[in-house]
Amino acid sequence: MDEIRAGAGAGRPSPAADAVVVGREIRPTAYPRGEVRASDFRVVEVGVRGPQQGEVLVRNTWTSVDAALRVRLREKAPPGYFPAFPLDQPMDGIMTVGEVLESRADGFAPGDTVSHASGWRDYAVVEAGKDALGGVGTLTKLDVRGTPPQAHLGALGGTGLTAYAGLFHVAELRDGDVVWVSAAAGAVGSLVAQLAKIRGHRVIGSAGSDEKVRHLLEELGLDAAFNYKDGPLPDLLREAAPDGIDVYFDNVGGDHLEAAVGALRTSGRVAICGMISEYATEEPSQGPGKSQGPGNLMLAVTKSLTIRGFRGSGHTHLLPEVRRQLGAWLREGRLHCRETIVDGLPQAPAALAALLRGDNTGKTLVRIDGVAHRENPGG
Amino acid sequence: MDEIRAGAGAGRPSPAADAVVVGREIRPTAYPRGEVRASDFRVVEVGVRGPQQGEVLVRNTWTSVDAALRVRLREKAPPGYFPAFPLDQPMDGIMTVGEVLESRADGFAPGDTVSHASGWRDYAVVEAGKDALGGVGTLTKLDVRGTPPQAHLGALGGTGLTAYAGLFHVAELRDGDVVWVSAAAGAVGSLVAQLAKIRGHRVIGSAGSDEKVRHLLEELGLDAAFNYKDGPLPDLLREAAPDGIDVYFDNVGGDHLEAAVGALRTSGRVAICGMISEYATEEPSQGPGKSQGPGNLMLAVTKSLTIRGFRGSGHTHLLPEVRRQLGAWLREGRLHCRETIVDGLPQAPAALAALLRGDNTGKTLVRIDGVAHRENPGG
Repeated sequence: MDEIRAGAGAGRPSPAADAVVVGREIRPTAYPRGEVRASDFRVVEVGVRGPQQGEVLVRNTWTSVDAALRVRLREKAPPGYFPAFPLDQPMDGIMTVGEVLESRADGFAPGDTVSHASGWRDYAVVEAGKDALGGVGTLTKLDVRGTPPQAHLGALGGTGLTAYAGLFHVAELRDGDVVWVSAAAGAVGSLVAQLAKIRGHRVIGSAGSDEKVRHLLEELGLDAAFNYKDGPLPDLLREAAPDGIDVYFDNVGGDHLEAAVGALRTSGRVAICGMISEYATEEPSQGPGKSQGPGNLMLAVTKSLTIRGFRGSGHTHLLPEVRRQLGAWLREGRLHCRETIVDGLPQAPAALAALLRGDNTGKTLVRIDGVAHRENPGG
Repeated sequence: MDEIRAGAGAGRPSPAADAVVVGREIRPTAYPRGEVRASDFRVVEVGVRGPQQGEVLVRNTWTSVDAALRVRLREKAPPGYFPAFPLDQPMDGIMTVGEVLESRADGFAPGDTVSHASGWRDYAVVEAGKDALGGVGTLTKLDVRGTPPQAHLGALGGTGLTAYAGLFHVAELRDGDVVWVSAAAGAVGSLVAQLAKIRGHRVIGSAGSDEKVRHLLEELGLDAAFNYKDGPLPDLLREAAPDGIDVYFDNVGGDHLEAAVGALRTSGRVAICGMISEYATEEPSQGPGKSQGPGNLMLAVTKSLTIRGFRGSGHTHLLPEVRRQLGAWLREGRLHCRETIVDGLPQAPAALAALLRGDNTGKTLVRIDGVAHRENPGG
């Protein structure tokens, strides 16, 4: 990536006039075709102004790397989704945790730990109360007693919300359900699998490496797990769940969804959280041939199946419940949250590329080092 | 079709001993590959015994021809579905209306009009109270005041139940929803479209001929209608529903389902009732390449869509409500029920073949003529 200097964005006062600090931000420079590469992004140095009335200046400490960001790295995001990331602009709408440096907003004071949605940069000016990511990304003061701050990007944030809402509200988990979770070693999947285990269900996990499968069996305590690369999915699934499944939590789409439709029992349910297998297609909104839909949907009729897509941000009202419940399970040691941590903001694009290749376990996070850049170029 | 004579089935007393009448029944002789042909069936003459304790002898007058019968014309029906029709056996599980000739069951008397599930034959011995088709086909005495008896195979029977349950309970129709119904000139589709109109919705119908489209617009009063053969489905749908749709009632599957997923607005719902485009595939339970699944299911995530397969027989508890509500609308002239009637039991297979080719409007029915065959071969 190139590093360049730029102003803080159109429409704001010129950085020379009121910048209080030099920050770095990651900007996409080209929309990836197929695989994401770090060279599709660059690091830009910008002057960051101080907060105006109702705003806070935050030094970001952790920022999130999510597979679904791939969906927004294109000219036009699919209908209904968060907007595409414009080229050569900071990436708005990525969950981040940081420390308030300066506040001109009620309820926020220097030293507060907060979450917000102005990620992939080391400083951000954030307007209090302004809706972001359906409320999940709205500036929030965090209670970090007993939990590390980055947990608010994982189990206690949008990731936990997605897992919790998807399993309990979208898939409507019922007593006795046998649950299959794909990408079960991933950020959302590993939470879903553990939540279902805590509730006493038989849980099958799948992942893309033997090491991840070991993690699922040995650390997360799943009842069965398989490496989807080991054979035809329907066979692997039949071996893990000989009597079928009742709930499929889908992070993958494609052949995984089709195998689930085949294995689901009468009145079974699918919560489609994501489709990592589809993210690289140029136009997920467009027709046949672009991706392989499940060819066995007639079984949805014969077996009375329900297939629901959802987004965590559609269930923001559950966030306090998620923080309370998952926070308690975290502190009790009942939830294991492995993290894949990369150091340094400039590594965020490479971390996303690695995540999309499957080189991650648990939540992928960037530990931002903003300190070395704190200076005032305009002063 | 050949006509032959045979006994009334294994395990029953020999027809010569106790047969009271000679009946005809349709039996499949070979499972169709692809298109259904009348030559895949034959008419068999059988001696029909009198009723034993708890049974009635019924002279069938009307029997139902449904696209979904195709799903059972194979060696093994898909999981969760009604069983396949065995070769060279009478076809159990087809809705029928008839007149009780002789009763040894409480609550049934000669002359009663009844419905039951022993169709595609002109006489049937039916056990009272025995579950058939999830309860829809259980022997039922019909109130035929004010409605023709065959209405109990259509709007007041399983067809009406499927339309009503699918629209109101599966698709969860809400105020203001824009509704698209495929195969809207068919038995179920034409009811769904009219029910949504009665509730004040904007309704778009599609069908496979210009004549059907005229029927949808002029007789059923839909807001828009198109012939799906007239162009790319997404374009036709966009023209009919420029702002998108909220509910899609699917009778077709395949490209229709994909177009719906493309056109649905946020929180949209699909009720999959049937997939006439898939019925001829050899193994709807089997994997990729066998049929074309929707390639745009990523939109189910971005738009929070719900896609539910269902069967009317899963909602049998609604049948009294359906008979009351749709019966009232029928008598008030608010529901138009066109029928495609074929005369004579032997025409049932040809009627099914025609239906599957799309040569039908409204409910397809066989008017059975059993009278000429009433005799006692054993007496």
